[in-house]
Amino acid sequence: MELNTILMEAPTCIARIIAYLRNQHLTLGTAESCSGGLIAHMLTNVSGVSDVYEGGVVTYSNALKSKLLGVSETTLIREGAVSAAVAQEMAAGALEGLGVDWALAVTGIAGPSGGTPEKPVGLVYMAVAGPDTLIVRRHVFNGNRESIKLQTAEAALTLLWESFK
Amino acid sequence: MELNTILMEAPTCIARIIAYLRNQHLTLGTAESCSGGLIAHMLTNVSGVSDVYEGGVVTYSNALKSKLLGVSETTLIREGAVSAAVAQEMAAGALEGLGVDWALAVTGIAGPSGGTPEKPVGLVYMAVAGPDTLIVRRHVFNGNRESIKLQTAEAALTLLWESFK
Repeated sequence: MELNTILMEAPTCIARIIAYLRNQHLTLGTAESCSGGLIAHMLTNVSGVSDVYEGGVVTYSNALKSKLLGVSETTLIREGAVSAAVAQEMAAGALEGLGVDWALAVTGIAGPSGGTPEKPVGLVYMAVAGPDTLIVRRHVFNGNRESIKLQTAEAALTLLWESFK
Repeated sequence: MELNTILMEAPTCIARIIAYLRNQHLTLGTAESCSGGLIAHMLTNVSGVSDVYEGGVVTYSNALKSKLLGVSETTLIREGAVSAAVAQEMAAGALEGLGVDWALAVTGIAGPSGGTPEKPVGLVYMAVAGPDTLIVRRHVFNGNRESIKLQTAEAALTLLWESFK
């Protein structure tokens, strides 16, 4: 694994996210599939994040997406695990499953295998759920597995920060 | 142990873990507190890990340790979140909560704040639960927050590998 993926400095937006949530007395949880814990790792590199970050789940299997986040098996079958619908259900399910005010969820294909013409490697859906908020966004990233994970985490944290405004 | 050594060794250990579990048709889950998702991140940097890795939880708060892993509130109060008893309950709870054959759990103090004379920064308990197995180990690591997270992840993955033998 590359040094910069693990040792990287937390993006500026993480400090802003933590400050906003702390100021508002709100909590955050994460629900990750293709980013595989990287978002949680980046958040928890910041001392004091435990004031606002309750924790998260890495629901790599479909079974765990249903068990921990309540993602509907029908949605998983009909739309596929990498879909806007599943990202939304993961984020909404994390609000309840983790007991938090805001939740950030991602599902995608980090590669190098698992891609199809319709759903290529690098396709990622990310969703934010919060008070009166449910936002989903689609990305297609280029690069190797670690690069796609990193781009996913950075874009997801940016989406979360933008959702507060 | 130097940081570079840790980064060199971890992937080799992970490849062995994945190969063993795949060969035995067994699954793995993780339950992380102080490592904050880094173990999940390191595992999911390896393509094909989804054959054996169902996923994990990052139970940063005590509430999530109880909710997702069934850690007893009495144990949390009596022993503290950073204790051998909580590490064992996290690992045992992950077997059921994640529906896996093997579980790796860590709880500790990554610092720089949160240390006490009895429980200093760098104190980490890690536990492995599996078929006829429940192992717990105590470490005290030196270094900054990110270094302690890295040393925790490396030692935990090594403990898991050793537990298979």
